[in-house]
Amino acid sequence: MTDHISKTYDQELDGLRRLVAEMGGLGERMLADATTALMREDAKRAQSVIATDPRLDDLQRKIEDNAVLMLMRRQPVANDLREVMASIRIANDLERIGDLAKNIAKRSLKMQGHMLSGSAMGGIEALSRLAQAQLKDVLDAYAQSNEKGAIDVWTRDGQIDALENALFRELLTYMMEDPRNITFCTHLLFCAKNIERLGDHTTNIAETVHYLVTGKSLPSDRPKGDSPSDVNS
Amino acid sequence: MTDHISKTYDQELDGLRRLVAEMGGLGERMLADATTALMREDAKRAQSVIATDPRLDDLQRKIEDNAVLMLMRRQPVANDLREVMASIRIANDLERIGDLAKNIAKRSLKMQGHMLSGSAMGGIEALSRLAQAQLKDVLDAYAQSNEKGAIDVWTRDGQIDALENALFRELLTYMMEDPRNITFCTHLLFCAKNIERLGDHTTNIAETVHYLVTGKSLPSDRPKGDSPSDVNS
Repeated sequence: MTDHISKTYDQELDGLRRLVAEMGGLGERMLADATTALMREDAKRAQSVIATDPRLDDLQRKIEDNAVLMLMRRQPVANDLREVMASIRIANDLERIGDLAKNIAKRSLKMQGHMLSGSAMGGIEALSRLAQAQLKDVLDAYAQSNEKGAIDVWTRDGQIDALENALFRELLTYMMEDPRNITFCTHLLFCAKNIERLGDHTTNIAETVHYLVTGKSLPSDRPKGDSPSDVNS
Repeated sequence: MTDHISKTYDQELDGLRRLVAEMGGLGERMLADATTALMREDAKRAQSVIATDPRLDDLQRKIEDNAVLMLMRRQPVANDLREVMASIRIANDLERIGDLAKNIAKRSLKMQGHMLSGSAMGGIEALSRLAQAQLKDVLDAYAQSNEKGAIDVWTRDGQIDALENALFRELLTYMMEDPRNITFCTHLLFCAKNIERLGDHTTNIAETVHYLVTGKSLPSDRPKGDSPSDVNS
Protein backbone atom coordinates (compact mmCIF):
# COMPACT_ATOMS: atom_id res chain seq x y z
CA MET A 1 0.00 0.00 0.00
CA THR A 2 2.91 2.39 0.64
CA ASP A 3 6.43 2.78 -0.56
CA HIS A 4 8.66 2.53 2.43
CA ILE A 5 12.39 2.20 2.38
CA SER A 6 12.25 0.00 5.42
CA LYS A 7 10.79 -3.40 4.77
CA THR A 8 10.20 -3.94 8.46
CA TYR A 9 7.91 -0.94 8.55
CA ASP A 10 5.67 -2.47 5.88
CA GLN A 11 5.74 -5.76 7.71
CA GLU A 12 4.67 -4.04 10.90
CA LEU A 13 1.73 -2.37 9.15
CA ASP A 14 0.77 -5.69 7.55
CA GLY A 15 1.04 -7.33 10.95
CA LEU A 16 -1.44 -4.85 12.42
CA ARG A 17 -3.86 -5.49 9.55
CA ARG A 18 -3.58 -9.23 10.02
CA LEU A 19 -4.35 -8.96 13.74
CA VAL A 20 -7.40 -6.79 13.03
CA ALA A 21 -8.56 -9.28 10.39
CA GLU A 22 -8.13 -12.09 12.91
CA MET A 23 -10.25 -10.21 15.43
CA GLY A 24 -12.85 -9.58 12.74
CA GLY A 25 -13.06 -13.28 11.89
CA LEU A 26 -13.49 -14.18 15.54
CA GLY A 27 -16.17 -11.51 16.02
CA GLU A 28 -18.12 -12.77 13.00
CA ARG A 29 -18.00 -16.34 14.25
CA MET A 30 -19.03 -15.34 17.77
CA LEU A 31 -22.12 -13.52 16.48
CA ALA A 32 -23.10 -16.41 14.17
CA ASP A 33 -22.59 -18.99 16.93
CA ALA A 34 -24.39 -16.96 19.58
CA THR A 35 -27.38 -16.69 17.26
CA THR A 36 -27.34 -20.42 16.52
CA ALA A 37 -27.05 -21.13 20.25
CA LEU A 38 -30.11 -18.97 20.83
CA MET A 39 -32.22 -20.42 18.02
CA ARG A 40 -31.35 -24.06 18.69
CA GLU A 41 -31.01 -23.91 22.47
CA ASP A 42 -27.47 -25.14 22.01
CA ALA A 43 -25.77 -24.65 25.38
CA LYS A 44 -22.46 -26.09 24.26
CA ARG A 45 -22.18 -23.60 21.45
CA ALA A 46 -23.10 -20.77 23.81
CA GLN A 47 -20.31 -21.84 26.14
CA SER A 48 -17.82 -21.86 23.28
CA VAL A 49 -18.79 -18.27 22.37
CA ILE A 50 -18.24 -17.23 25.98
CA ALA A 51 -14.89 -19.04 26.03
CA THR A 52 -13.74 -17.24 22.86
CA ASP A 53 -14.15 -13.73 24.26
CA PRO A 54 -10.83 -13.55 26.15
CA ARG A 55 -8.97 -14.25 22.89
CA LEU A 56 -10.58 -11.17 21.41
CA ASP A 57 -9.51 -9.14 24.43
CA ASP A 58 -5.93 -10.41 24.10
CA LEU A 59 -5.84 -9.54 20.42
CA GLN A 60 -7.09 -6.04 21.12
CA ARG A 61 -4.40 -5.49 23.72
CA LYS A 62 -1.77 -6.81 21.31
CA ILE A 63 -2.94 -4.49 18.52
CA GLU A 64 -2.88 -1.52 20.89
CA ASP A 65 0.60 -2.39 22.16
CA ASN A 66 1.97 -2.84 18.64
CA ALA A 67 0.30 0.34 17.41
CA VAL A 68 1.74 2.39 20.27
CA LEU A 69 5.22 1.01 19.60
CA MET A 70 4.85 1.92 15.94
CA LEU A 71 3.70 5.44 16.76
CA MET A 72 6.77 5.92 18.95
CA ARG A 73 9.36 4.23 16.74
CA ARG A 74 8.16 5.24 13.30
CA GLN A 75 6.33 8.48 13.88
CA PRO A 76 4.09 7.76 10.94
CA VAL A 77 2.36 10.49 8.96
CA ALA A 78 -0.55 10.72 6.52
CA ASN A 79 -1.71 7.28 5.28
CA ASP A 80 0.45 5.37 7.69
CA LEU A 81 -0.72 7.32 10.71
CA ARG A 82 -4.32 6.71 9.65
CA GLU A 83 -3.54 3.01 9.24
CA VAL A 84 -2.16 2.73 12.77
CA MET A 85 -4.99 4.75 14.31
CA ALA A 86 -7.59 2.78 12.33
CA SER A 87 -6.25 -0.47 13.73
CA ILE A 88 -6.68 0.83 17.29
CA ARG A 89 -10.22 2.06 16.62
CA ILE A 90 -11.43 -1.00 14.74
CA ALA A 91 -9.96 -3.29 17.39
CA ASN A 92 -11.88 -1.33 20.00
CA ASP A 93 -15.16 -1.78 18.11
CA LEU A 94 -14.49 -5.46 17.47
CA GLU A 95 -13.81 -6.02 21.15
CA ARG A 96 -17.22 -4.50 21.93
CA ILE A 97 -18.84 -6.61 19.20
CA GLY A 98 -17.40 -9.73 20.82
CA ASP A 99 -18.75 -8.58 24.18
CA LEU A 100 -22.23 -8.15 22.76
CA ALA A 101 -22.13 -11.58 21.10
CA LYS A 102 -20.99 -13.03 24.42
CA ASN A 103 -23.95 -11.35 26.15
CA ILE A 104 -26.35 -12.99 23.71
CA ALA A 105 -24.71 -16.37 24.30
CA LYS A 106 -24.99 -15.95 28.09
CA ARG A 107 -28.58 -14.92 27.81
CA SER A 108 -29.39 -17.91 25.58
CA LEU A 109 -28.33 -20.16 28.45
CA LYS A 110 -31.07 -18.69 30.62
CA MET A 111 -33.71 -19.03 27.95
CA GLN A 112 -33.54 -22.78 27.43
CA GLY A 113 -36.87 -24.53 27.24
CA HIS A 114 -39.01 -21.42 26.84
CA MET A 115 -38.97 -21.00 23.08
CA LEU A 116 -41.59 -18.70 21.63
CA SER A 117 -43.00 -20.15 18.49
CA GLY A 118 -43.33 -18.22 15.32
CA SER A 119 -42.31 -14.83 14.19
CA ALA A 120 -40.50 -13.43 17.24
CA MET A 121 -37.70 -15.98 17.00
CA GLY A 122 -37.66 -15.57 13.22
CA GLY A 123 -37.38 -11.82 13.75
CA ILE A 124 -34.33 -12.20 15.99
CA GLU A 125 -32.72 -14.51 13.48
CA ALA A 126 -33.38 -12.10 10.60
CA LEU A 127 -31.98 -9.23 12.66
CA SER A 128 -28.85 -11.21 13.41
CA ARG A 129 -28.39 -12.22 9.77
CA LEU A 130 -28.58 -8.59 8.75
CA ALA A 131 -25.99 -7.68 11.38
CA GLN A 132 -23.77 -10.57 10.27
CA ALA A 133 -23.95 -9.45 6.63
CA GLN A 134 -23.06 -5.88 7.65
CA LEU A 135 -20.11 -7.06 9.71
CA LYS A 136 -18.85 -9.27 6.89
CA ASP A 137 -19.17 -6.44 4.38
CA VAL A 138 -17.35 -3.91 6.55
CA LEU A 139 -14.49 -6.35 7.18
CA ASP A 140 -14.26 -6.94 3.42
CA ALA A 141 -14.23 -3.17 2.86
CA TYR A 142 -11.38 -2.91 5.36
CA ALA A 143 -9.41 -5.76 3.76
CA GLN A 144 -9.84 -4.23 0.29
CA SER A 145 -9.56 -0.57 1.33
CA ASN A 146 -12.91 -0.18 -0.38
CA GLU A 147 -14.43 3.25 0.20
CA LYS A 148 -17.71 2.42 -1.53
CA GLY A 149 -18.15 -0.76 0.50
CA ALA A 150 -17.72 1.23 3.70
CA ILE A 151 -20.33 3.79 2.61
CA ASP A 152 -22.76 0.99 1.72
CA VAL A 153 -22.51 -0.51 5.20
CA TRP A 154 -22.83 2.91 6.80
CA THR A 155 -25.96 3.66 4.79
CA ARG A 156 -27.63 0.35 5.54
CA ASP A 157 -27.48 0.59 9.35
CA GLY A 158 -30.99 2.07 9.31
CA GLN A 159 -32.33 -1.32 8.17
CA ILE A 160 -31.16 -2.97 11.38
CA ASP A 161 -32.75 -0.23 13.46
CA ALA A 162 -36.06 -0.52 11.60
CA LEU A 163 -36.16 -4.29 11.99
CA GLU A 164 -35.23 -4.09 15.66
CA ASN A 165 -37.94 -1.53 16.27
CA ALA A 166 -40.59 -3.73 14.61
CA LEU A 167 -39.42 -6.68 16.68
CA PHE A 168 -39.63 -4.62 19.83
CA ARG A 169 -43.26 -3.76 19.20
CA GLU A 170 -44.06 -7.37 18.44
CA LEU A 171 -42.44 -8.58 21.65
CA LEU A 172 -44.36 -6.01 23.68
CA THR A 173 -47.64 -7.37 22.30
CA TYR A 174 -46.68 -10.93 23.29
CA MET A 175 -45.95 -9.68 26.77
CA MET A 176 -49.29 -7.95 26.99
CA GLU A 177 -51.18 -10.97 25.67
CA ASP A 178 -49.82 -13.40 28.23
CA PRO A 179 -47.83 -12.54 31.36
CA ARG A 180 -46.10 -15.92 31.15
CA ASN A 181 -44.25 -14.57 28.11
CA ILE A 182 -42.83 -11.59 29.98
CA THR A 183 -39.57 -13.03 31.31
CA PHE A 184 -38.70 -14.76 28.06
CA CYS A 185 -39.61 -11.74 25.95
CA THR A 186 -37.52 -9.50 28.19
CA HIS A 187 -34.53 -11.67 27.38
CA LEU A 188 -35.33 -11.37 23.68
CA LEU A 189 -35.68 -7.59 23.99
CA PHE A 190 -32.15 -7.44 25.36
CA CYS A 191 -30.84 -9.80 22.68
CA ALA A 192 -32.37 -7.56 20.02
CA LYS A 193 -30.86 -4.50 21.67
CA ASN A 194 -27.45 -6.19 21.76
CA ILE A 195 -27.67 -6.90 18.04
CA GLU A 196 -28.67 -3.31 17.32
CA ARG A 197 -25.70 -2.00 19.30
CA LEU A 198 -23.49 -4.47 17.50
CA GLY A 199 -24.75 -2.85 14.29
CA ASP A 200 -23.75 0.56 15.66
CA HIS A 201 -20.20 -0.68 16.20
CA THR A 202 -20.19 -2.07 12.66
CA THR A 203 -21.19 1.39 11.47
CA ASN A 204 -18.34 2.88 13.50
CA ILE A 205 -15.96 0.53 11.68
CA ALA A 206 -17.41 1.66 8.35
CA GLU A 207 -16.65 5.27 9.34
CA THR A 208 -13.11 4.33 10.30
CA VAL A 209 -12.55 2.46 7.03
CA HIS A 210 -13.86 5.43 5.07
CA TYR A 211 -11.54 7.77 6.93
CA LEU A 212 -8.64 5.36 6.47
CA VAL A 213 -9.13 5.16 2.72
CA THR A 214 -10.09 8.75 1.93
CA GLY A 215 -8.70 10.79 4.81
CA LYS A 216 -12.17 12.33 5.15
CA SER A 217 -14.90 11.83 7.74
CA LEU A 218 -18.42 10.81 6.85
CA PRO A 219 -21.12 13.32 7.82
CA SER A 220 -22.07 13.32 11.48
CA ASP A 221 -25.78 12.64 10.85
CA ARG A 222 -25.15 9.01 10.15
CA PRO A 223 -28.13 6.67 9.88
CA LYS A 224 -27.74 5.61 13.48
CA GLY A 225 -29.88 3.72 15.98
CA ASP A 226 -30.95 6.92 17.68
CA SER A 227 -34.34 7.06 16.10
CA PRO A 228 -36.90 8.97 18.14
CA SER A 229 -39.28 6.07 17.84
CA ASP A 230 -41.90 5.32 20.37
CA VAL A 231 -40.80 2.40 22.48
CA ASN A 232 -37.18 2.01 21.70
CA SER A 233 -33.91 3.88 21.43
CA MET B 1 4.61 14.12 39.00
CA THR B 2 7.81 13.58 37.01
CA ASP B 3 11.12 15.30 36.67
CA HIS B 4 11.44 16.39 33.09
CA ILE B 5 14.03 18.69 31.71
CA SER B 6 11.53 20.03 29.25
CA LYS B 7 8.86 22.16 30.87
CA THR B 8 6.66 21.84 27.80
CA TYR B 9 6.54 18.07 28.26
CA ASP B 10 5.11 18.47 31.76
CA GLN B 11 2.66 21.02 30.46
CA GLU B 12 1.52 18.60 27.78
CA LEU B 13 0.94 15.84 30.35
CA ASP B 14 -0.94 18.30 32.58
CA GLY B 15 -2.98 19.36 29.60
CA LEU B 16 -4.06 15.78 28.96
CA ARG B 17 -5.05 15.38 32.60
CA ARG B 18 -7.06 18.57 32.52
CA LEU B 19 -8.97 17.46 29.42
CA VAL B 20 -9.75 14.10 31.01
CA ALA B 21 -10.94 15.88 34.18
CA GLU B 22 -13.14 18.13 32.06
CA MET B 23 -14.69 15.09 30.37
CA GLY B 24 -15.21 13.51 33.79
CA GLY B 25 -17.02 16.58 35.09
CA LEU B 26 -19.29 16.63 32.04
CA GLY B 27 -20.00 12.91 32.36
CA GLU B 28 -20.93 13.28 36.02
CA ARG B 29 -23.29 16.14 35.28
CA MET B 30 -24.90 14.31 32.38
CA LEU B 31 -25.69 11.30 34.56
CA ALA B 32 -27.06 13.46 37.40
CA ASP B 33 -29.17 15.53 35.00
CA ALA B 34 -30.45 12.52 33.07
CA THR B 35 -31.61 10.99 36.34
CA THR B 36 -33.31 14.20 37.45
CA ALA B 37 -34.96 14.48 34.03
CA LEU B 38 -36.29 10.96 34.45
CA MET B 39 -37.50 11.39 38.03
CA ARG B 40 -39.13 14.80 37.52
CA GLU B 41 -40.28 14.35 33.93
CA ASP B 42 -38.14 17.36 33.07
CA ALA B 43 -37.96 17.44 29.27
CA LYS B 44 -35.84 20.57 29.15
CA ARG B 45 -33.16 19.02 31.29
CA ALA B 46 -33.26 15.85 29.17
CA GLN B 47 -32.69 17.97 26.06
CA SER B 48 -29.72 19.68 27.66
CA VAL B 49 -28.13 16.30 28.45
CA ILE B 50 -28.59 15.27 24.82
CA ALA B 51 -27.12 18.57 23.66
CA THR B 52 -24.04 18.11 25.86
CA ASP B 53 -23.01 14.79 24.34
CA PRO B 54 -21.18 16.19 21.26
CA ARG B 55 -18.90 18.19 23.57
CA LEU B 56 -17.82 14.96 25.19
CA ASP B 57 -17.13 13.45 21.78
CA ASP B 58 -15.05 16.49 20.80
CA LEU B 59 -13.03 16.29 24.01
CA GLN B 60 -12.34 12.62 23.45
CA ARG B 61 -11.07 13.29 19.94
CA LYS B 62 -8.89 16.10 21.25
CA ILE B 63 -7.39 13.88 23.96
CA GLU B 64 -6.67 11.17 21.44
CA ASP B 65 -5.08 13.60 18.98
CA ASN B 66 -2.90 15.16 21.69
CA ALA B 67 -1.94 11.77 23.09
CA VAL B 68 -0.89 10.47 19.67
CA LEU B 69 1.21 13.59 19.06
CA MET B 70 2.88 13.09 22.43
CA LEU B 71 3.60 9.43 21.71
CA MET B 72 5.27 10.41 18.44
CA ARG B 73 7.16 13.50 19.61
CA ARG B 74 8.16 12.44 23.10
CA GLN B 75 8.34 8.67 22.89
CA PRO B 76 7.45 8.45 26.56
CA VAL B 77 8.45 5.50 28.72
CA ALA B 78 7.38 4.06 32.09
CA ASN B 79 5.16 6.45 34.09
CA ASP B 80 4.77 8.91 31.27
CA LEU B 81 3.75 6.26 28.76
CA ARG B 82 1.18 4.95 31.23
CA GLU B 83 -0.07 8.50 31.74
CA VAL B 84 -0.62 9.04 28.01
CA MET B 85 -2.23 5.64 27.49
CA ALA B 86 -4.44 6.12 30.57
CA SER B 87 -5.78 9.39 29.16
CA ILE B 88 -6.80 7.61 25.93
CA ARG B 89 -8.47 4.75 27.82
CA ILE B 90 -10.28 6.89 30.37
CA ALA B 91 -11.50 9.26 27.65
CA ASN B 92 -12.89 6.25 25.81
CA ASP B 93 -14.81 5.09 28.89
CA LEU B 94 -16.06 8.61 29.64
CA GLU B 95 -17.33 8.96 26.10
CA ARG B 96 -19.34 5.77 26.57
CA ILE B 97 -20.59 6.98 29.95
CA GLY B 98 -21.86 10.15 28.28
CA ASP B 99 -23.57 8.05 25.62
CA LEU B 100 -25.34 5.98 28.25
CA ALA B 101 -26.48 9.10 30.14
CA LYS B 102 -27.75 10.50 26.84
CA ASN B 103 -29.71 7.27 26.24
CA ILE B 104 -31.40 7.65 29.63
CA ALA B 105 -32.25 11.27 28.83
CA LYS B 106 -33.74 10.29 25.45
CA ARG B 107 -35.73 7.52 27.02
CA SER B 108 -37.06 9.85 29.73
CA LEU B 109 -38.64 11.94 26.97
CA LYS B 110 -40.72 8.95 25.92
CA MET B 111 -41.79 8.14 29.45
CA GLN B 112 -43.50 11.41 30.31
CA GLY B 113 -46.86 11.07 32.01
CA HIS B 114 -46.58 7.39 32.85
CA MET B 115 -44.81 7.53 36.19
CA LEU B 116 -44.91 4.38 38.28
CA SER B 117 -45.52 5.22 41.87
CA GLY B 118 -43.44 3.83 44.65
CA SER B 119 -40.40 1.71 44.87
CA ALA B 120 -39.51 1.16 41.20
CA MET B 121 -38.75 4.83 40.62
CA GLY B 122 -36.99 4.99 43.96
CA GLY B 123 -34.97 1.98 42.93
CA ILE B 124 -33.81 3.65 39.73
CA GLU B 125 -32.88 6.77 41.65
CA ALA B 126 -30.91 4.76 44.23
CA LEU B 127 -29.14 2.89 41.44
CA SER B 128 -28.19 6.13 39.75
CA ARG B 129 -26.95 7.69 43.00
CA LEU B 130 -24.72 4.68 43.57
CA ALA B 131 -23.36 5.00 40.02
CA GLN B 132 -22.84 8.75 40.52
CA ALA B 133 -20.92 8.18 43.75
CA GLN B 134 -18.73 5.57 42.05
CA LEU B 135 -18.01 7.89 39.13
CA LYS B 136 -17.15 10.78 41.45
CA ASP B 137 -14.86 8.55 43.53
CA VAL B 138 -13.01 7.16 40.53
CA LEU B 139 -12.46 10.65 39.10
CA ASP B 140 -11.11 11.74 42.50
CA ALA B 141 -8.83 8.69 42.55
CA TYR B 142 -7.57 9.70 39.09
CA ALA B 143 -7.03 13.34 40.11
CA GLN B 144 -5.15 12.29 43.25
CA SER B 145 -3.37 9.26 41.76
CA ASN B 146 -4.95 7.34 44.60
CA GLU B 147 -4.43 3.60 44.27
CA LYS B 148 -6.63 2.73 47.24
CA GLY B 149 -9.48 4.87 45.96
CA ALA B 150 -9.36 3.04 42.65
CA ILE B 151 -9.46 -0.35 44.37
CA ASP B 152 -12.44 0.77 46.49
CA VAL B 153 -14.44 1.71 43.41
CA TRP B 154 -13.46 -1.50 41.65
CA THR B 155 -14.57 -3.57 44.64
CA ARG B 156 -17.90 -1.82 45.03
CA ASP B 157 -19.17 -2.42 41.48
CA GLY B 158 -20.95 -5.55 42.72
CA GLN B 159 -23.33 -3.31 44.70
CA ILE B 160 -24.62 -1.72 41.52
CA ASP B 161 -25.15 -5.11 39.92
CA ALA B 162 -27.00 -6.44 42.96
CA LEU B 163 -29.28 -3.41 43.11
CA GLU B 164 -29.95 -3.53 39.39
CA ASN B 165 -30.80 -7.21 39.59
CA ALA B 166 -33.29 -6.62 42.42
CA LEU B 167 -34.86 -3.77 40.46
CA PHE B 168 -35.14 -6.00 37.41
CA ARG B 169 -37.08 -8.60 39.32
CA GLU B 170 -39.34 -5.96 40.78
CA LEU B 171 -40.09 -4.47 37.37
CA LEU B 172 -40.91 -7.90 35.99
CA THR B 173 -43.52 -8.39 38.72
CA TYR B 174 -45.14 -5.03 37.88
CA MET B 175 -45.33 -6.11 34.27
CA MET B 176 -46.93 -9.39 35.20
CA GLU B 177 -49.44 -7.74 37.52
CA ASP B 178 -50.77 -5.30 34.97
CA PRO B 179 -50.09 -5.33 31.21
CA ARG B 180 -50.57 -1.55 31.14
CA ASN B 181 -47.24 -1.28 32.97
CA ILE B 182 -45.33 -3.22 30.35
CA THR B 183 -44.24 -0.43 28.01
CA PHE B 184 -43.23 1.90 30.82
CA CYS B 185 -41.43 -0.84 32.73
CA THR B 186 -39.56 -1.87 29.59
CA HIS B 187 -38.19 1.67 29.39
CA LEU B 188 -37.15 1.45 33.03
CA LEU B 189 -35.49 -1.92 32.43
CA PHE B 190 -33.35 -0.30 29.76
CA CYS B 191 -32.58 2.71 31.96
CA ALA B 192 -31.43 0.35 34.71
CA LYS B 193 -29.31 -1.59 32.24
CA ASN B 194 -27.75 1.65 31.00
CA ILE B 195 -26.81 2.59 34.56
CA GLU B 196 -25.33 -0.84 35.17
CA ARG B 197 -23.22 -0.56 32.03
CA LEU B 198 -22.19 2.91 33.09
CA GLY B 199 -20.97 1.29 36.30
CA ASP B 200 -18.93 -1.18 34.24
CA HIS B 201 -17.19 1.71 32.50
CA THR B 202 -16.53 3.31 35.89
CA THR B 203 -14.93 0.04 36.95
CA ASN B 204 -12.82 0.09 33.78
CA ILE B 205 -11.60 3.56 34.77
CA ALA B 206 -10.74 2.26 38.24
CA GLU B 207 -8.62 -0.46 36.60
CA THR B 208 -6.89 2.12 34.43
CA VAL B 209 -6.18 4.39 37.41
CA HIS B 210 -4.78 1.45 39.36
CA TYR B 211 -2.52 0.54 36.46
CA LEU B 212 -1.49 4.16 36.00
CA VAL B 213 -0.47 4.55 39.64
CA THR B 214 1.07 1.13 40.31
CA GLY B 215 2.07 -0.19 36.89
CA LYS B 216 0.20 -3.38 37.79
CA SER B 217 -3.12 -4.75 36.57
CA LEU B 218 -5.94 -5.70 38.90
CA PRO B 219 -6.94 -9.38 38.79
CA SER B 220 -9.08 -10.34 35.83
CA ASP B 221 -11.95 -11.71 37.94
CA ARG B 222 -13.18 -8.27 38.79
CA PRO B 223 -16.57 -7.91 40.49
CA LYS B 224 -18.26 -7.28 37.17
CA GLY B 225 -21.85 -7.20 35.97
CA ASP B 226 -21.56 -10.63 34.43
CA SER B 227 -23.39 -12.40 37.20
CA PRO B 228 -25.04 -15.63 36.11
CA SER B 229 -28.26 -14.47 37.72
CA ASP B 230 -31.63 -15.59 36.56
CA VAL B 231 -33.26 -12.81 34.61
CA ASN B 232 -30.47 -10.43 33.92
CA SER B 233 -26.96 -10.25 32.60
